[in-house]
Amino acid sequence: MSKAAGENIGVGMVGHAFMGAVHSQAWRTVHRFFDVPYVPVLAALGGRDEVRAKAAAVRLGWAAVETDWRDLIAREDVGIVDICTPGDSHAEIAIAALAAGKHVLCEKPLANTVAEAEAMAEAARAASERGVRAMVAFNYRRVPALAHARRLVADGVLGEIRHVRAAYLQDWLSDAEAPMTWRLRKEFAGSGALGDLGAHIVDAAQFVTGEHITGVSALTQTFVRDRPEGEGRGEVTVDDCALFTARLSGGAVASFEATRYALGRKNAMRLEINGSRGSVAFDFESMNELSYFDGTDPGTESGFRRIVVTEPEHPYLSAWWPPGHGLGYEHTFTHEVADLLRAIGSGADPAPGFDDGLRVQRVLDAVSASAEDGSRWTPVPDTPVEGR
Amino acid sequence: MSKAAGENIGVGMVGHAFMGAVHSQAWRTVHRFFDVPYVPVLAALGGRDEVRAKAAAVRLGWAAVETDWRDLIAREDVGIVDICTPGDSHAEIAIAALAAGKHVLCEKPLANTVAEAEAMAEAARAASERGVRAMVAFNYRRVPALAHARRLVADGVLGEIRHVRAAYLQDWLSDAEAPMTWRLRKEFAGSGALGDLGAHIVDAAQFVTGEHITGVSALTQTFVRDRPEGEGRGEVTVDDCALFTARLSGGAVASFEATRYALGRKNAMRLEINGSRGSVAFDFESMNELSYFDGTDPGTESGFRRIVVTEPEHPYLSAWWPPGHGLGYEHTFTHEVADLLRAIGSGADPAPGFDDGLRVQRVLDAVSASAEDGSRWTPVPDTPVEGR
Amino acid sequence: MSKAAGENIGVGMVGHAFMGAVHSQAWRTVHRFFDVPYVPVLAALGGRDEVRAKAAAVRLGWAAVETDWRDLIAREDVGIVDICTPGDSHAEIAIAALAAGKHVLCEKPLANTVAEAEAMAEAARAASERGVRAMVAFNYRRVPALAHARRLVADGVLGEIRHVRAAYLQDWLSDAEAPMTWRLRKEFAGSGALGDLGAHIVDAAQFVTGEHITGVSALTQTFVRDRPEGEGRGEVTVDDCALFTARLSGGAVASFEATRYALGRKNAMRLEINGSRGSVAFDFESMNELSYFDGTDPGTESGFRRIVVTEPEHPYLSAWWPPGHGLGYEHTFTHEVADLLRAIGSGADPAPGFDDGLRVQRVLDAVSASAEDGSRWTPVPDTPVEGR
Amino acid sequence: MSKAAGENIGVGMVGHAFMGAVHSQAWRTVHRFFDVPYVPVLAALGGRDEVRAKAAAVRLGWAAVETDWRDLIAREDVGIVDICTPGDSHAEIAIAALAAGKHVLCEKPLANTVAEAEAMAEAARAASERGVRAMVAFNYRRVPALAHARRLVADGVLGEIRHVRAAYLQDWLSDAEAPMTWRLRKEFAGSGALGDLGAHIVDAAQFVTGEHITGVSALTQTFVRDRPEGEGRGEVTVDDCALFTARLSGGAVASFEATRYALGRKNAMRLEINGSRGSVAFDFESMNELSYFDGTDPGTESGFRRIVVTEPEHPYLSAWWPPGHGLGYEHTFTHEVADLLRAIGSGADPAPGFDDGLRVQRVLDAVSASAEDGSRWTPVPDTPVEGR
Repeated sequence: MSKAAGENIGVGMVGHAFMGAVHSQAWRTVHRFFDVPYVPVLAALGGRDEVRAKAAAVRLGWAAVETDWRDLIAREDVGIVDICTPGDSHAEIAIAALAAGKHVLCEKPLANTVAEAEAMAEAARAASERGVRAMVAFNYRRVPALAHARRLVADGVLGEIRHVRAAYLQDWLSDAEAPMTWRLRKEFAGSGALGDLGAHIVDAAQFVTGEHITGVSALTQTFVRDRPEGEGRGEVTVDDCALFTARLSGGAVASFEATRYALGRKNAMRLEINGSRGSVAFDFESMNELSYFDGTDPGTESGFRRIVVTEPEHPYLSAWWPPGHGLGYEHTFTHEVADLLRAIGSGADPAPGFDDGLRVQRVLDAVSASAEDGSRWTPVPDTPVEGR
Repeated sequence: MSKAAGENIGVGMVGHAFMGAVHSQAWRTVHRFFDVPYVPVLAALGGRDEVRAKAAAVRLGWAAVETDWRDLIAREDVGIVDICTPGDSHAEIAIAALAAGKHVLCEKPLANTVAEAEAMAEAARAASERGVRAMVAFNYRRVPALAHARRLVADGVLGEIRHVRAAYLQDWLSDAEAPMTWRLRKEFAGSGALGDLGAHIVDAAQFVTGEHITGVSALTQTFVRDRPEGEGRGEVTVDDCALFTARLSGGAVASFEATRYALGRKNAMRLEINGSRGSVAFDFESMNELSYFDGTDPGTESGFRRIVVTEPEHPYLSAWWPPGHGLGYEHTFTHEVADLLRAIGSGADPAPGFDDGLRVQRVLDAVSASAEDGSRWTPVPDTPVEGR
Repeated sequence: MSKAAGENIGVGMVGHAFMGAVHSQAWRTVHRFFDVPYVPVLAALGGRDEVRAKAAAVRLGWAAVETDWRDLIAREDVGIVDICTPGDSHAEIAIAALAAGKHVLCEKPLANTVAEAEAMAEAARAASERGVRAMVAFNYRRVPALAHARRLVADGVLGEIRHVRAAYLQDWLSDAEAPMTWRLRKEFAGSGALGDLGAHIVDAAQFVTGEHITGVSALTQTFVRDRPEGEGRGEVTVDDCALFTARLSGGAVASFEATRYALGRKNAMRLEINGSRGSVAFDFESMNELSYFDGTDPGTESGFRRIVVTEPEHPYLSAWWPPGHGLGYEHTFTHEVADLLRAIGSGADPAPGFDDGLRVQRVLDAVSASAEDGSRWTPVPDTPVEGR
Repeated sequence: MSKAAGENIGVGMVGHAFMGAVHSQAWRTVHRFFDVPYVPVLAALGGRDEVRAKAAAVRLGWAAVETDWRDLIAREDVGIVDICTPGDSHAEIAIAALAAGKHVLCEKPLANTVAEAEAMAEAARAASERGVRAMVAFNYRRVPALAHARRLVADGVLGEIRHVRAAYLQDWLSDAEAPMTWRLRKEFAGSGALGDLGAHIVDAAQFVTGEHITGVSALTQTFVRDRPEGEGRGEVTVDDCALFTARLSGGAVASFEATRYALGRKNAMRLEINGSRGSVAFDFESMNELSYFDGTDPGTESGFRRIVVTEPEHPYLSAWWPPGHGLGYEHTFTHEVADLLRAIGSGADPAPGFDDGLRVQRVLDAVSASAEDGSRWTPVPDTPVEGR
């Protein structure tokens, strides 16, 4: 049977801003390139403002609109609920959707608090027993270069991991007069650069190394305390940047930095890993490349290799174009929904699941706690749910 | 009116290999991101082998299949004919489609001979007078970095152009035992690296500089004369590489190289331009970047700037993602069909038109002639059609 | 008067290993390229093993040998004492030399303990009042690219400094079976990567920003606890790596990492600084380049500039070759002794002086203290000598 | 016996501008780092203007001055004559020096005409039979990265060579109002960018490949015809740039470009070689790096390796600093004189000899001839001296 001839599955998406647009492109596209067991149908789009939601539905290709997410979840033609809202609403929607027997794809960070994340992970575990799947949208795992780095580590090619160097650098707040947004309000976003950017590099570091962060020491900073909002000024109630050191379960030491003030760095999501036999380095600003150092090369011929990660044998690449014809940001989401559809089809839990999201949340929580307590070393509980 | 609410226009595409797949993605996607006056409908796919064509239609999203391109052209629901076949069939299909009043998008090189290209350009000119549009698919013009480079030159930022350094380097034939393909047969492909890769850099150099190549001196080489084919060996009847020097209408000198034997270079379509006031450099392997040297910077602070071409003010970028979230190869085709639809909507001829395709063909022809005649300097006629 | 016609000044150097060799080249070369008020004469070389010291003296160009550094200091023909020994002997030699009225150049780190460094700084202050000069050999300040970065910051071009990202990555201990050396023994080296590499990036960060580190949170790690030595194994008693976060006096936050286990990184001494108006980035592996982002460039033309720091207007460059003809590691030492000779000639204290060395030592001390106390935030005293 | 304890050999150098300064540094330094059989003594400096020559001698460290090069050659204390004058005087001085039994090091290009170069090569051959050595100063052969590239090719690591891509890009004439210099006068310089820069890349391409250029097709251009000189304007009588294609004796095709108008490129002496099994790429602006692609690496892990050419096993490197501590431009000359002294000591002809210089001259001559004759293909005689 051809790629596009699978059974249909209806998707209902809540939220239609940046994340909604890129998820829509993934749902529209995935079955054109990947052998997936279901063809996604863009059934319904959720948005509180009906006029804006309808316009978005036309533009993005959704068949219907719901102004209450509860109605969206309840629709018979919706089999997957895709949550693209700010973090403060994730728990309520996800738990309800899972309870209603709908598979869930939830944007990161999983939640704004550990308590919410725990409840979500609990709900996902219960749902899994009923064959209902839950995935958290750490899309950077689906960058082919990082997925390939994971393969190299898993194959032992890097040896024992000693160093992780992770940073996510943006600069859109460098201008102290850039306007307020919900992302700078603790009540909506939970945290600032930490949850938005830090969550990605924490997950990526744990994913690529296959290890867990066991403890952290952190500091955070808010450089600009208030910003233009409406006629006046709005208070910034989240961190502008977060820096922390960490230890990993396998003995490695790590440094992390998330900021929106690294002037000139547009989306520099970076990860370098040094092992006893090899190293890898990645920067999303050159997303189709992976730097790889093979410590077993002869000394005179060794050097970081600039691998153009576009060979058909590279992760996800056989679906796309010939070597050297690179992919873009949006493709990571297409890969993500392909993996989700396959997991649903095969009756397995997808990765990263809500437990992985919770694990990241625990790290972010430890970072905040350490930053508030003089950078004190703060262990991260190593079981997804304490006491279990 | 919203982006996706325009009038429908039916597309009929001939050919469903690599180019067909990427064109399909562009037709399916364009109206989701660009304000285009027409929403493309993937009406019919042309392919000689019905079984394979039908499978492709399902996978790529085409509503119907035609095994004879004449029937495809004749369909009432087809308003645009998209030609994705090898170069030997371009002229016949394009001329027939234009005669039938259908807009045409034709893959490059425009044709395998100057005579065919002239006939096509003639047909396009006649069609234009009837409001029918023709475009040749030099997609690299739609790489945002190159479109931005064109803006810089057009704005005079680079001053007087003195040097053009163009190369298109691939390596998929480096292995002497890689198998035969139609691309190595003169009767189908017209030429080898010259027409396939050289055509792109000739068009790109002329596009970015806004100048024409006035003469060339060339050499070509076939490194591997026969390759595995079926049980035996097939003869390679095209060039493996072409190198030429050139002069441009504005006084610049240029070097060009097209090869499939640059081991390690996967899709290095490169262009560097040095002017009296500034320089730009580009490599498709880092397609989201443009290097720019501003000769008016103070000497101690001057250096090639690595512009990450993802700002909303960069060409085509306002349709896509935030800064630093790069695009991929396929987006150049989405931009291409957006520009075609806009041209159709506004009643203007799109660029590059068949005259531009003919102009490239004349350069390739001069290259071949020079290579066959001891690299003798060979002028390129500067009018699209001689004698007019 | 010509460059090489200044008054002679005798130099006595203690130690003739790696640092001794590179200092010798600087002393032999400086007056050939810089207008210095004194021509250095390589008067005497100090080394405990007479045979080895004599061989070194012949090879490196020293006129005489002393096996006791006290005799070397006492020589009438020695006006400058250059200390190239391990850190445990710095204080004793330097203090004695200053007391004897000899100018001192001392390798970094200034000392192995804060107490020693305080005594040295005290001695240098007293000597200064008698016209005797003391300099600590943080040679990376004399990399033209970093000296130029300092200029940019001092001129306000970067605006308010928000981020410092410093790392010094080497890999020569990646192999767990690499042999023991004095650098891995606390009694000689004081610390491991921290004092050897960390000292450089602490000084460089403070130098380029013009700010002081006010507090740190740190972790250190020893990956390989014993190594081959003679017939058996020797215990490693220093850190293999040190990671710390920091705050600077002007409000910036910073991260530091020093390691000898970053496989593939040979001498990656890196510094990135993000300000409110501009950023700079440097990597010693490309020592003739400085990356500079000018936040006031138009958005569509902004990008990190790769400045090739070889223009005559760049720091130290007018002494050397035409643009693009780069310098090497050893030139930083030539610049260093040029600056020392000029300071002596002009009757001013050179920079960095022993107070700067002490300041670095205090930071290293705070790093060690924090690392031993659960990464607790540890302030760094902001006066060079507490209580003064 | 120690490095610096060899027998003395006197050097007499003619010319004391840029090349004289860098050669002086090499002569002063070589025995401090290399085991050479002779310690060079800077005996006498030749310069027509006595005042300027004396000042240069003091600054550069030469013991005496001669205003007539014939007197310099005749000195008993001169065993090596080092020619650092413009090309128009090379032949006369070199032939006289060889006739006088003095070893000769001659700056490139060997001469301004093929006839002169032939006479010089003839003289060198005759001298060789008497044990007198002659070397032409193609210093880029002594860049460790290029010397290592040569090793890789010679060891067969790259397989059959198919492509050479050579360029030497500078920009110091980009400003049309930059002043006249002797380098822009045919009577002194012979040619412009061709002889100055083109000579280097022709030699480097032949050196690294171990092949000869057998024919060329060329174009040259003078962008700015006159420049400020004194109170008026002086006519530029040489090429501003030269571009040519070529074939090599082993079947490779090549492109060459030499220009002083590549705005932003300071000293970009570049060489890329693609073979059937591997590729190398080099750019002097990053002189301590060699890019190497190993075609036998697995496809998913293959990529250009950025080799930091500073390991002790790399050519010339055991004499210098630890890995990652790079060299600069001047070190290529130190390597050059080390090789010359070793050749003299071992009684062998050094490479590159005058025959190599003649070979380059023949290529430059063919380039000029082709450029003047409509880029006609022009063979390069493959014997150093025709008819022999």
